[in-house]
Amino acid sequence: MSRYRVSVHIVPRKGILDPQGKAVADALHTLGFRDVEDARIGRHVVLDVAARTPDAAGDAVRQMCERLLANPVTEDYEIARVEGLS
Amino acid sequence: MSRYRVSVHIVPRKGILDPQGKAVADALHTLGFRDVEDARIGRHVVLDVAARTPDAAGDAVRQMCERLLANPVTEDYEIARVEGLS
Repeated sequence: MSRYRVSVHIVPRKGILDPQGKAVADALHTLGFRDVEDARIGRHVVLDVAARTPDAAGDAVRQMCERLLANPVTEDYEIARVEGLS
Repeated sequence: MSRYRVSVHIVPRKGILDPQGKAVADALHTLGFRDVEDARIGRHVVLDVAARTPDAAGDAVRQMCERLLANPVTEDYEIARVEGLS
């Protein structure tokens, strides 16, 4: 078994209200960052996983997203990166 | 001015306790995902910004991280991607 570091992005689904993103965009405007048009806030999850191959590590994390990490009604997830750990 | 979508990862600094990551790792073990060795939870922030160049968009977001988005004591941030929006 090798060790892999898998990064996942979990973001509010398009069309779902994102009050935290709205609050951040408003705060940035107040601070003078007027060129910000939209902000969306999700989670960046980094998992260290033991697996035989990078694909197996990605598949395991996909299952974790389905069962625990992401809310299937309101969130989308994406495996952003799988890197080997020495 | 063009529009760019800038993605930022904000993660707990190495060595800082991450109770949310610990809770997620424990919950994954309970669900049977025994191959998870560590979990760390950060924020994935996606900003749509008007700027002249991709570099200018990245620089603006770096300033936003310094001033609002990241906690300079406990968190590290990284500009993960800058993509043009049509």
